[in-house]
Amino acid sequence: MQLLKGSVAKARIESQVTDRLSAIRAKGESVRIALFRVGERGDDCGYERSILRACERFGIETEHTDFPEDVAEDTLYSALAAAAQRNDVDGILLFRPLPTPLRTERIRTAVPPEKDIDGALLEESCFTPCTPEACMHLLEAYGISPNGKRCVVIGRSPVVGKPLANLLRAAGGLVTVCHTQTVDVPKETREAELLFVACGKPRMVDRTYLSPRQIIIDVGFHPTENGFCGDVKAEDAEAIADAYTPVPGGVGSVTLSVLLLHAVQAHERKHV
Amino acid sequence: MQLLKGSVAKARIESQVTDRLSAIRAKGESVRIALFRVGERGDDCGYERSILRACERFGIETEHTDFPEDVAEDTLYSALAAAAQRNDVDGILLFRPLPTPLRTERIRTAVPPEKDIDGALLEESCFTPCTPEACMHLLEAYGISPNGKRCVVIGRSPVVGKPLANLLRAAGGLVTVCHTQTVDVPKETREAELLFVACGKPRMVDRTYLSPRQIIIDVGFHPTENGFCGDVKAEDAEAIADAYTPVPGGVGSVTLSVLLLHAVQAHERKHV
Repeated sequence: MQLLKGSVAKARIESQVTDRLSAIRAKGESVRIALFRVGERGDDCGYERSILRACERFGIETEHTDFPEDVAEDTLYSALAAAAQRNDVDGILLFRPLPTPLRTERIRTAVPPEKDIDGALLEESCFTPCTPEACMHLLEAYGISPNGKRCVVIGRSPVVGKPLANLLRAAGGLVTVCHTQTVDVPKETREAELLFVACGKPRMVDRTYLSPRQIIIDVGFHPTENGFCGDVKAEDAEAIADAYTPVPGGVGSVTLSVLLLHAVQAHERKHV
Repeated sequence: MQLLKGSVAKARIESQVTDRLSAIRAKGESVRIALFRVGERGDDCGYERSILRACERFGIETEHTDFPEDVAEDTLYSALAAAAQRNDVDGILLFRPLPTPLRTERIRTAVPPEKDIDGALLEESCFTPCTPEACMHLLEAYGISPNGKRCVVIGRSPVVGKPLANLLRAAGGLVTVCHTQTVDVPKETREAELLFVACGKPRMVDRTYLSPRQIIIDVGFHPTENGFCGDVKAEDAEAIADAYTPVPGGVGSVTLSVLLLHAVQAHERKHV
């Protein structure tokens, strides 16, 4: 049994930090982060102290603004926005979770992603790419819930597989994503209750990938000599599966509707 | 065999779009999106035409700016930034992928997430939350690669489980995420080669979750009467696993170093 000690990784990272800070200082520049804390949660205060100490040790400049737990949303927002606009502030860290009356979704918009060094503000409230959201709408339209179900996704692209996995998981699915580095894809996919195919290879998924009772969502869309085909061999899916999305007339036909919905949502959120 | 038809979902979404647009119009407002295309890829041009037609049908205002394939990065950036700043533009869609000389990472910063209605610009180049990145640094420090390995994560939180799944998958892992809606968590975790535990429950993961040869990364960190413990029963991990991260002295000790690294990276990227 080997102990994997944090100190080994820590030393490697900190040596990188030291080297890169030297290079930055050699150019007469410095690095500065701004911390924002709301309330007095023990975890936050402790982490804040550790950060301030570590920054001092490395010569990273810091500033911290602490608000009472009942701070007005606009006050917090303005303070974050002001720090975000300052060119001398490289990174911003807002301790989370925020007290409930504060709307994280609104507040996060004060910090641009390139200054969100804790990576904690984004992800959740952005728009999801339209195609994976179209898959979810399709399931919903047919009353199929991924909750508690074994979901397998083939493909990990940033526009389909990855955000689809996130949506399915948020909806309660037990999600596994297969891709080019997966040793035995058919073995994985045969275990699926819901199978999502976004490998981008025409008719790649044949009966060897499938097992009875499955619901198959085919995200592929490829022109052929006579019309279009998906990533799944349609005749195999039809022979084996419980339900299957046709190509054309399946996921692809929903994507543009999702884009329209996003346009409307973008407008509505602006006026919240 | 049931065919899951896109038209069913499409009708549901479009009826929502219609209703919500009526409400918006009743307030004397309108929805506008701006499309940006670089080059003349057939897919992009086709999708653009479909979007323009659909928007016209629903009364969503559109504008589109088409650039030649060799457009200067600054020209594209400025055009996007100008649209982003206009209050009458609710959503922006930039067709991707961009021609290779253009740096998507820089260009995406011109569009704020709340106007990125295709959700395609973000995700990849934001900072990842520090804890999951600390897990990756720990593996790397010990020469352990997730590539092709069966990785199981317990927990799907936005600050650990979810981004950790994304990082592991990007590193080639075959990733499954278990959570509160998972029917039989121990069954899943026993299949893991690399097991990441971020369930937030002190010592929840005992020998029934484990099998020999595993590498176990314990993300938990809980105060106890005598020191700290993780989400894994340490004595069980030590008896069964090939490698295990201690608590304290494991993942938690790396997190703050990652934050420092992010601060440095934020500074460096600003000056690219």
